[in-house]
Amino acid sequence: MAVELNKELFDSLISCIASQDSNRALELIKDLHPADIAEIFEEIEVDDAKFLFMLLDSETAADVIVELEDEEREKLLEVIPSEFIARHLIGQMDSDDAADILGDLDDEKSDEILSHLTDLDQAGDIVDLLNYDEDTAGGLMAKELVAINENLTVKQALGELRDQADEIDEIYYLYVIDDNNKLKGTIKLKDLLFSSTNKKISNIVDPDVISVRTDTDEEEVARLMGKYDLVAVPVVDGIGRLVGRITIDDVVDVIREEAEEDYQLMSGITQDVDSSDSVIKQSRSRIPWLLIGMFGGICGSLILGYYEGDIAKYAVLALFLPLIAAMGGNAGVQSSAIVVQGLASGDVDLHSVSGKLFKEFKVGLLNGLVCSMIIFLYNLIFADNYALTITVSTALFAVIVFATVFGTFIPLLLNKLKIDPAIATGPFITTSNDIIGLFIYLMIARLVFGYFF
Amino acid sequence: MAVELNKELFDSLISCIASQDSNRALELIKDLHPADIAEIFEEIEVDDAKFLFMLLDSETAADVIVELEDEEREKLLEVIPSEFIARHLIGQMDSDDAADILGDLDDEKSDEILSHLTDLDQAGDIVDLLNYDEDTAGGLMAKELVAINENLTVKQALGELRDQADEIDEIYYLYVIDDNNKLKGTIKLKDLLFSSTNKKISNIVDPDVISVRTDTDEEEVARLMGKYDLVAVPVVDGIGRLVGRITIDDVVDVIREEAEEDYQLMSGITQDVDSSDSVIKQSRSRIPWLLIGMFGGICGSLILGYYEGDIAKYAVLALFLPLIAAMGGNAGVQSSAIVVQGLASGDVDLHSVSGKLFKEFKVGLLNGLVCSMIIFLYNLIFADNYALTITVSTALFAVIVFATVFGTFIPLLLNKLKIDPAIATGPFITTSNDIIGLFIYLMIARLVFGYFF
Repeated sequence: MAVELNKELFDSLISCIASQDSNRALELIKDLHPADIAEIFEEIEVDDAKFLFMLLDSETAADVIVELEDEEREKLLEVIPSEFIARHLIGQMDSDDAADILGDLDDEKSDEILSHLTDLDQAGDIVDLLNYDEDTAGGLMAKELVAINENLTVKQALGELRDQADEIDEIYYLYVIDDNNKLKGTIKLKDLLFSSTNKKISNIVDPDVISVRTDTDEEEVARLMGKYDLVAVPVVDGIGRLVGRITIDDVVDVIREEAEEDYQLMSGITQDVDSSDSVIKQSRSRIPWLLIGMFGGICGSLILGYYEGDIAKYAVLALFLPLIAAMGGNAGVQSSAIVVQGLASGDVDLHSVSGKLFKEFKVGLLNGLVCSMIIFLYNLIFADNYALTITVSTALFAVIVFATVFGTFIPLLLNKLKIDPAIATGPFITTSNDIIGLFIYLMIARLVFGYFF
Repeated sequence: MAVELNKELFDSLISCIASQDSNRALELIKDLHPADIAEIFEEIEVDDAKFLFMLLDSETAADVIVELEDEEREKLLEVIPSEFIARHLIGQMDSDDAADILGDLDDEKSDEILSHLTDLDQAGDIVDLLNYDEDTAGGLMAKELVAINENLTVKQALGELRDQADEIDEIYYLYVIDDNNKLKGTIKLKDLLFSSTNKKISNIVDPDVISVRTDTDEEEVARLMGKYDLVAVPVVDGIGRLVGRITIDDVVDVIREEAEEDYQLMSGITQDVDSSDSVIKQSRSRIPWLLIGMFGGICGSLILGYYEGDIAKYAVLALFLPLIAAMGGNAGVQSSAIVVQGLASGDVDLHSVSGKLFKEFKVGLLNGLVCSMIIFLYNLIFADNYALTITVSTALFAVIVFATVFGTFIPLLLNKLKIDPAIATGPFITTSNDIIGLFIYLMIARLVFGYFF
């Protein structure tokens, strides 16, 4: 059974590297999965990674390269000769992995590696794949698949399969094509295996196949595969010819990335960072939202400045400023998050925008009522200031209702405008709700306090 | 090719239901994928769903039941006789789906359905599966798999495969077991197919198999399958006997749910809701965070109340209250989100807690410096009040540094205490940072204003 990486093993490896003890280092990593070796590489300096890398056999080395994060991979490939990469690494990879990796390198290095490839079929496949946008089905797909002509018999197909299968690690479905290479359907391997050998393929093909086009967006591919529980999906070109297949492992990565992206947008982080990134990179990814938040805070201070006289006169008003601002932000984020998740799930939209907004209005009314009742009672008991009591509860009610509806409206609007609606959960909506909340609060305060005093 | 659901088709269906036109309704849904039919069911009343449901053939009906959300499924199954469910639906399902569905029903209904099952093997499998916690590998796995004894020859194994394969839709790997049913390894279908027929299975088995135990947490299963790019993983019991397998489609659901859960925690939503849920359910899922936020706001007002004298004297202080509170919340959420994502990715932890905190401290210093410099210059130019200028920029710096470190510390602490660290990104950390921020601001204000005036 495979050995999993742990801290102890990692520390031993570090000391092997320090003493350049190749034998012991190889001993330590030889039973590790490539994904674990890649994890180690991400924690050490590139020269140390190179030292370990050169100990690996070609197949493991290629798998490790595939598993590495883009940044670490680029660094490592830079210190390895192009010829070695072409001969010993790219040759071991599926076309989609090879294309992803070459696509991330600069053109010069990529061309140099391609020129050293001896398998011209593979080189051709890779160059083909490099033409597709990496966020589309074309950018995700691999060229390796088993395609069988519909005119063959089961016996001929089994022979064909034997010839083609050598190159392919996992076979999920066999794709059936006509003489023009057009996709006609699929056959499960087990059905081929247990059909009588002189049957024609066209008689046992399952024509109900879900396929995607090369230009289908990768998130749509992920949605389809998830919804229809597919482990692989064929990719066709504009006129229905079979050009590749996408397997579920690539799509799992898309799902994870998509979720992480939405998560980061909501938490106000602008690029893909993790805790192992440098202080500078971490800081750069967070500063933008902090600046937007600060800009919002400055706008807030200008609104408050306009009411400074009221605050000087009734300082007690200031006590509930943070509460009002925070509640507007909270209610808005909740609504936006629900809309964003709904849009991301890709469920078919069977309701009208006005219907959704009206429903949110009702949710806002209910939540606003509950919260404002509580703060009303609290202030009635503890505050001993009727004007304040009325102001805070009325304003809180208005702010929650407004923020709830606004938080639903903005992502729907962004989506209509073909902008990623997840942006709404980030800085923009919280900051605007903060500011609008303050404005509502102070307007109501002026009315109420004017009446009472 | 499959037809996808759209609004037009949905509206036509609704009118068919209204006029009880079975023929036309069947015509409309017969080419839809079960996942799409399930989507329709989630939008209509249970009686209408039953009307459509009864038009479906058993296989499609079973698939639709599997695809439905828990709540809608329970409602629908309640209005369908147990005998019909047992005979026509459960019989068509894999054991894992059947167990999931029965596990969600109340015990009485579930027992009634089980008592009507005619296939006693299947009933036994389902009862076995019902014993496992649904968040573990045991709760995810299906009993359907192809197991081959290591002592067979390739030829015998192919015969065995033909017998077993009938019950199983997709075969990814063949599992090799010994006489005691212990898992010894895997064989790819294509390797079995193309090995010479008198070879022994034990000679072609790949012993390097990654397996999970029945009590492995489902998130760990998802992490392993994602990391090692597995489409199926065998499940063994405490002494290594093969008891089931988990396929990637079930794990894709786990990944999505996990991501959604973290997302909802961050946005302050306490249960799984989507926009099609009722106003009451929507409200109930959001009220808790609003109440916590309000509690935080009240605490904030108490702190401010303590400084009310200062605010009455220097009303200008109030202008920057929302800015300080918001920035503390923002910086804290950013840090927490990065930690939570790092923990969720399950990368092996190769760094010490103090190292992480020190790094965050540096990020906080940098971000705090940038923000406080900007607000310093802004106030220097526009505020014409040195005490305010110094107070706001010093406090902002302190608040950002504190919130950044605190936001890292809390999820790490929660994780150590075996509490879901994602809670830190929700109400708790934002609210505490808001309050602590206000406290820091007013303390500094008292010092600075005391010195100046």
